[in-house]
Amino acid sequence: MATTTKASLAPDQAADIDAARAATSQTIRPTVPALEAMLHTPVPVLDHGFVRVIDYMGDDSAIVQAARVSYGRGTKRVQEDTGLIRYLMRHRHTTPFEMCEIKFHVKLPIFVARQWIRHRTASVNEYSARYSILDREFYIPAPEQLAAQSTTNRQGRGSVLQGEEAQAVLAMLRADADRCYADYATMLNEDPADPSRQGLARELARMNLTLNTYTQWYWKTNLHNLFHFLSLRADAHAQYEIRVYADAMMAMVDAWVPAAAQAFRDYRLGAVTLSAQMLAVLRRMLAGETVTQDNSGMSKREWTEFAQSVLD
Amino acid sequence: MATTTKASLAPDQAADIDAARAATSQTIRPTVPALEAMLHTPVPVLDHGFVRVIDYMGDDSAIVQAARVSYGRGTKRVQEDTGLIRYLMRHRHTTPFEMCEIKFHVKLPIFVARQWIRHRTASVNEYSARYSILDREFYIPAPEQLAAQSTTNRQGRGSVLQGEEAQAVLAMLRADADRCYADYATMLNEDPADPSRQGLARELARMNLTLNTYTQWYWKTNLHNLFHFLSLRADAHAQYEIRVYADAMMAMVDAWVPAAAQAFRDYRLGAVTLSAQMLAVLRRMLAGETVTQDNSGMSKREWTEFAQSVLD
Amino acid sequence: MATTTKASLAPDQAADIDAARAATSQTIRPTVPALEAMLHTPVPVLDHGFVRVIDYMGDDSAIVQAARVSYGRGTKRVQEDTGLIRYLMRHRHTTPFEMCEIKFHVKLPIFVARQWIRHRTASVNEYSARYSILDREFYIPAPEQLAAQSTTNRQGRGSVLQGEEAQAVLAMLRADADRCYADYATMLNEDPADPSRQGLARELARMNLTLNTYTQWYWKTNLHNLFHFLSLRADAHAQYEIRVYADAMMAMVDAWVPAAAQAFRDYRLGAVTLSAQMLAVLRRMLAGETVTQDNSGMSKREWTEFAQSVLD
Amino acid sequence: MATTTKASLAPDQAADIDAARAATSQTIRPTVPALEAMLHTPVPVLDHGFVRVIDYMGDDSAIVQAARVSYGRGTKRVQEDTGLIRYLMRHRHTTPFEMCEIKFHVKLPIFVARQWIRHRTASVNEYSARYSILDREFYIPAPEQLAAQSTTNRQGRGSVLQGEEAQAVLAMLRADADRCYADYATMLNEDPADPSRQGLARELARMNLTLNTYTQWYWKTNLHNLFHFLSLRADAHAQYEIRVYADAMMAMVDAWVPAAAQAFRDYRLGAVTLSAQMLAVLRRMLAGETVTQDNSGMSKREWTEFAQSVLD
Repeated sequence: MATTTKASLAPDQAADIDAARAATSQTIRPTVPALEAMLHTPVPVLDHGFVRVIDYMGDDSAIVQAARVSYGRGTKRVQEDTGLIRYLMRHRHTTPFEMCEIKFHVKLPIFVARQWIRHRTASVNEYSARYSILDREFYIPAPEQLAAQSTTNRQGRGSVLQGEEAQAVLAMLRADADRCYADYATMLNEDPADPSRQGLARELARMNLTLNTYTQWYWKTNLHNLFHFLSLRADAHAQYEIRVYADAMMAMVDAWVPAAAQAFRDYRLGAVTLSAQMLAVLRRMLAGETVTQDNSGMSKREWTEFAQSVLD
Repeated sequence: MATTTKASLAPDQAADIDAARAATSQTIRPTVPALEAMLHTPVPVLDHGFVRVIDYMGDDSAIVQAARVSYGRGTKRVQEDTGLIRYLMRHRHTTPFEMCEIKFHVKLPIFVARQWIRHRTASVNEYSARYSILDREFYIPAPEQLAAQSTTNRQGRGSVLQGEEAQAVLAMLRADADRCYADYATMLNEDPADPSRQGLARELARMNLTLNTYTQWYWKTNLHNLFHFLSLRADAHAQYEIRVYADAMMAMVDAWVPAAAQAFRDYRLGAVTLSAQMLAVLRRMLAGETVTQDNSGMSKREWTEFAQSVLD
Repeated sequence: MATTTKASLAPDQAADIDAARAATSQTIRPTVPALEAMLHTPVPVLDHGFVRVIDYMGDDSAIVQAARVSYGRGTKRVQEDTGLIRYLMRHRHTTPFEMCEIKFHVKLPIFVARQWIRHRTASVNEYSARYSILDREFYIPAPEQLAAQSTTNRQGRGSVLQGEEAQAVLAMLRADADRCYADYATMLNEDPADPSRQGLARELARMNLTLNTYTQWYWKTNLHNLFHFLSLRADAHAQYEIRVYADAMMAMVDAWVPAAAQAFRDYRLGAVTLSAQMLAVLRRMLAGETVTQDNSGMSKREWTEFAQSVLD
Repeated sequence: MATTTKASLAPDQAADIDAARAATSQTIRPTVPALEAMLHTPVPVLDHGFVRVIDYMGDDSAIVQAARVSYGRGTKRVQEDTGLIRYLMRHRHTTPFEMCEIKFHVKLPIFVARQWIRHRTASVNEYSARYSILDREFYIPAPEQLAAQSTTNRQGRGSVLQGEEAQAVLAMLRADADRCYADYATMLNEDPADPSRQGLARELARMNLTLNTYTQWYWKTNLHNLFHFLSLRADAHAQYEIRVYADAMMAMVDAWVPAAAQAFRDYRLGAVTLSAQMLAVLRRMLAGETVTQDNSGMSKREWTEFAQSVLD
């Protein structure tokens, strides 16, 4: 891990991380040793990306503490903490989960950043290509990720490209990113500068880069909004290139708030929502009736979804 | 302070605070000793209220760190931290301030809570009177706060009520709150319960309480949103009963992020915004012209505001 | 309806409504005749409250239009509109529902307003008791709503109070609200003013009112956030006094966006979410096994919830 | 305008616009003839982009109506509408401006979309390149926009590139966008499809496009948030490529809510905020003292900003 990681970090970033990990303080805030052990250290994602936790606030007991203020002394000590957290998750009492906060530093391809930013309830500071020059780093899929368009799902992947076609695709991705970056550098005329040219403004030159160029940002959100993000992005329907970030973050959440994370897996990630129609069909089935799409009252598409999520 | 405070806390809350202040951990997160010294301890506000910091994330350097990710390596070490923070505040580059987070526990009268909650960009867990029984505590203004309606400002206060009128007002406030609470307790029929009665549902009985009854909540927000709250509520135009909370919180912010707090005082709290018209008049004045409302092109009201904020 | 309504409106409000309903314009915006027929007219709720639609933007086809921009020309005309709307709702593709907006004018008791305002993703302008004097109107529950505290659910209602206890409760609610309002008026000293007194500032006097006093506000939100509000407040677990507002609003949504409203009823209001554990048990049952709480792996509470929502 | 516009629209979009402009309805909602005249019609921006208003809710009087609910009957008719709107704007009473809503359809380069989306308080539906194929359209700056990097401002532009350097930059921008798009089409293998190849998944192939490729979205926000957007993006410090969109939208706002738009120009766009230090210096100047940076107590940078915004 260390080697891969060092490759993804600028030299000054690596030094900053070592310094941050060495700086120990005393605090009377809630502290989670399992997450402290991970703090600052980048977890590699994709070929040049990473995600790392920079800071956090709260723990499982901060969720419980907030819920107990809501419920007042009446419920104090009535339920043990894990049971209360599971109850809150099951009944979508979401505000106590907002009492925990986490901040990540993420390095990711721009086309992934464009999906990610659609989650509006977070704070973001992104590297600015108006001010600074982006590094020469692009995402090139590993051969086993070079998937064909799905023939059944308009936004999904089918089988993996093979042989010549795969080679051709990889060659194009590499050559185009390389050439665009080289021309970006030429237009900027900064390193080294040719004194006979002025150099194009950074805010303009960046438009020549391809969407697989890496960017980076600080991304801070609360646990409720993070769970919403993970429910969409750690899901099988999410694009692989964002799902691997979500998976890495989910492992950090497991370390941080183990009770809430398990409740999230049971009641959200692994849960299924049944429509009024599905519920009616299910009750007929439990009563012994044989129900098929024809006599279900559901559309073909809905029946397929029902069969896949419940009956399989 | 201790005595007043103890009076405002339920006995189990006081024990929780002592336990929280005794529990020291090691952390590699940014830590602010001046705020750690205040952590958990309630600061009394009004007659039975308080505000206390429960947790925090980040410090002045977390603001700088986020700004430097945005600006990239180009600006690294170019400006020292305080100068950068002041620049960000002056130019309303607000996202780096979102990288700091703070959580308060507040006890406050319901009519103050109703003003406060209008700030939507925060996380809140409030004591629920559907679940639990509210304590018998109401806000009664100190005599020097018993102000008459302002005759010039529809939402302001005038001179302090005196003599018989003041006595009568205080007597009414006390008697009405007392009687409403006593009837609330009777309707609930819980302590002690009269076995011949069922007791009204808590969610209904609460409607009999007066708006000066105290409630409490956990309130968590980021530094940018907190500054927005403070710019409105630590302001001279804010109602006294919420301004005292804002003032207490401002002192905590001074301890937490001293550079950002000073920049906020200079560029927001103590700042004045001039309209295009005011700016034009000011330039005429600086050029030596005598400008009055008549030849200013401003409405009477606007001229008064200009005179009060700039000329005085 | 008209009579009850007129009683709830200030005379100038009634005149404004008549004027608004008479002012017809031509527009090339999406227009919904069924909602136009309801526009401006208050629907009475509780004893003095109401809710009315003031304005709206978009219709069912605006949802479809936004979804089709996302999916691009590829999906154009592939699905008919209702099917697409149902698909979006089922798969929680929520952003197209944000493209419809609605604005309500609501008159409601303050304790209901306090629940309602916890929904943060809306725009609100509330009557300000700092500026103006609240009317002498309080909510007094109808006898059939005078419920005892539930003995099984800490936030629920049990059987209806009877006889003497009911009479006593109603008498207390009426007398306390009356006396508090009378003292509020006395403290204000405005109508009529006693020249020997100054009158307490409005922002202070209001604290003497009880929580069943009526307030009013303009409340504007998008359809996605409205559905979230309705999923919590038109639900059987919501307090009756807010549920009746949600029910009245749901009827307006039925008129406004019939396809989206039906999808919401099928996939949200009438839906049930099964945890990973519930799903596993259900599959065992469908395979013919007899499963009880003992061999289900669920807690007693979770089993009860499962039985109530699925098996009954 | 028509010609340019038609070039930027897909054929089915042009037909949809004609149909939308022809469909007149009766409504009793607030209606603004000056904006109705603009509705649906695209205003060309940059070389292939546009912005057009799709729908709106409210007008100047909706702002007044909301403000008057807040202030209650007390202020009714006291101020005429324009004066009240100007008062609200001057004092940053922002909630009444949230009562107006507007929806745009925008076609814009991806690097502009990335700046724009940082405004989180809006609803967005963007064309999805996971589902559909992006058109072959890129932004190429007009020669007079081909600016050098500013030598004084890290995020600004300097003089316009000339001669050979300008030619070289334009040639690179064109050639790289063309080649990347051609390879994108080849990888997709859709039109025409080569039966010997599978075609790369759309969600992957899009990463090969350059950041000046055009995308489009529906973007809906309220007037308060739109003013915030315009205050940053219609400003001289904004990048030219987003400012031209903001300028086009500002013209639409002028038609829609003329009183609010003028107040926004006077109190926000044309306004200047003075820090506590600047205010102190200004008062010394008005009293006749000669103040320079040396005896001002301001940093060099702050003095320069003060001089530029106030003294010039």
